[in-house]
Amino acid sequence: MTGHKFRRLPNHIGVIPDGNRRWAVQHGLPKEAGYEKGLSPGVMLYEMCLELGIQELTFYGFTQDNNKRPSAQREAFQKACVEAVKMLSNRDAALLVIGDYSSPLFPPELIPFAKRYTFGKGLIKVNFLVNYGWKWDLNHALHPLAPEKRSVKNIVDSIASSDISRVDLIIRWGGRRRLSGFLPVQSIYADFYVIDEFWPDFKPEHFHWALSWYETQDVTLGG
Amino acid sequence: MTGHKFRRLPNHIGVIPDGNRRWAVQHGLPKEAGYEKGLSPGVMLYEMCLELGIQELTFYGFTQDNNKRPSAQREAFQKACVEAVKMLSNRDAALLVIGDYSSPLFPPELIPFAKRYTFGKGLIKVNFLVNYGWKWDLNHALHPLAPEKRSVKNIVDSIASSDISRVDLIIRWGGRRRLSGFLPVQSIYADFYVIDEFWPDFKPEHFHWALSWYETQDVTLGG
Repeated sequence: MTGHKFRRLPNHIGVIPDGNRRWAVQHGLPKEAGYEKGLSPGVMLYEMCLELGIQELTFYGFTQDNNKRPSAQREAFQKACVEAVKMLSNRDAALLVIGDYSSPLFPPELIPFAKRYTFGKGLIKVNFLVNYGWKWDLNHALHPLAPEKRSVKNIVDSIASSDISRVDLIIRWGGRRRLSGFLPVQSIYADFYVIDEFWPDFKPEHFHWALSWYETQDVTLGG
Repeated sequence: MTGHKFRRLPNHIGVIPDGNRRWAVQHGLPKEAGYEKGLSPGVMLYEMCLELGIQELTFYGFTQDNNKRPSAQREAFQKACVEAVKMLSNRDAALLVIGDYSSPLFPPELIPFAKRYTFGKGLIKVNFLVNYGWKWDLNHALHPLAPEKRSVKNIVDSIASSDISRVDLIIRWGGRRRLSGFLPVQSIYADFYVIDEFWPDFKPEHFHWALSWYETQDVTLGG
């Protein structure tokens, strides 16, 4: 990446790191073995974003929908999320973990990150969606017991993930062309780039392709 | 299309008919001249869906964001929406127009369609988003004066577009890879197919490509 100048960069990048299980099967491993192979790509991507001066990065960890999977997989993706947050928590980053904290499926180690936690110079905001659900996120706006919400008339300010800003570019690994519940409100105007390779096969040029494509797109915000 | 058998078809198709203005410029016409060229593609697509037995079809007409454009364009896309609804209102279809009816920018001719209106055998549900806004749609769930909503805890049932079902496949013409506010709740799990050609250059094979791609995708609903 170093040396290449982008004319226009996204402020906020969303990452859907899909294909861990398909990667494992392709390598003759049990499906749950794929998740830990996603850790080092995540750190690489973080470092590339830091170097470019990207302001915010959101990783799709796991969802409430994903919890329907067999327990071996559930444990593996929970563990990978805890590891990922640990790996970034001694770097320059302002970390936030968003998801249903009230559930036993939310890893207790991550509860301190339910409020944004700044490490080092906090040069980049990094958000992890962990035990996240789009319904959980949006239904928060309807909660009759949230007194601070009672006079709120704007969905953007009253969802559970309201601390996460608008996403400019979503990059999805693993070939699927769908959002799968990723931050529906923040993704309204996001440009969507799909990499066919599985996430454990992450290569720096994937990110490069996405950014090069992104700078050819106009920004209209629906206008 | 006739003769080709699809193994698996979407129940509900969303259509983002983009590129009308770029098409007009490419043909040396004023931008607003592009919209009426989108009418006949819409009828063709409706007929193809009817023939295939698709259950529901939603067209992205115009949005509150689009209203920022010059008045000549605004008048042209309003007129095209009125024409489109008229053209389908003597066919077999159960028509619904969704958008902010309370605004003068909502074409008064379409107010009767604010409730679903069935023509002929009503073989297919056809929805038009007209003066639609994703914030308008979602904020409806927060409205303190809607007594029927007070005990509702589920966003899906309390948005303004709650009569529109989950979208399985979104096809966008005009090359852009973004949702631009199209039914954020219903599009959560939708597969997203992009056609590079502009909407006025619609060809039946575009639709064929999208359906052929769709049947190769799995359906997990996030699981």
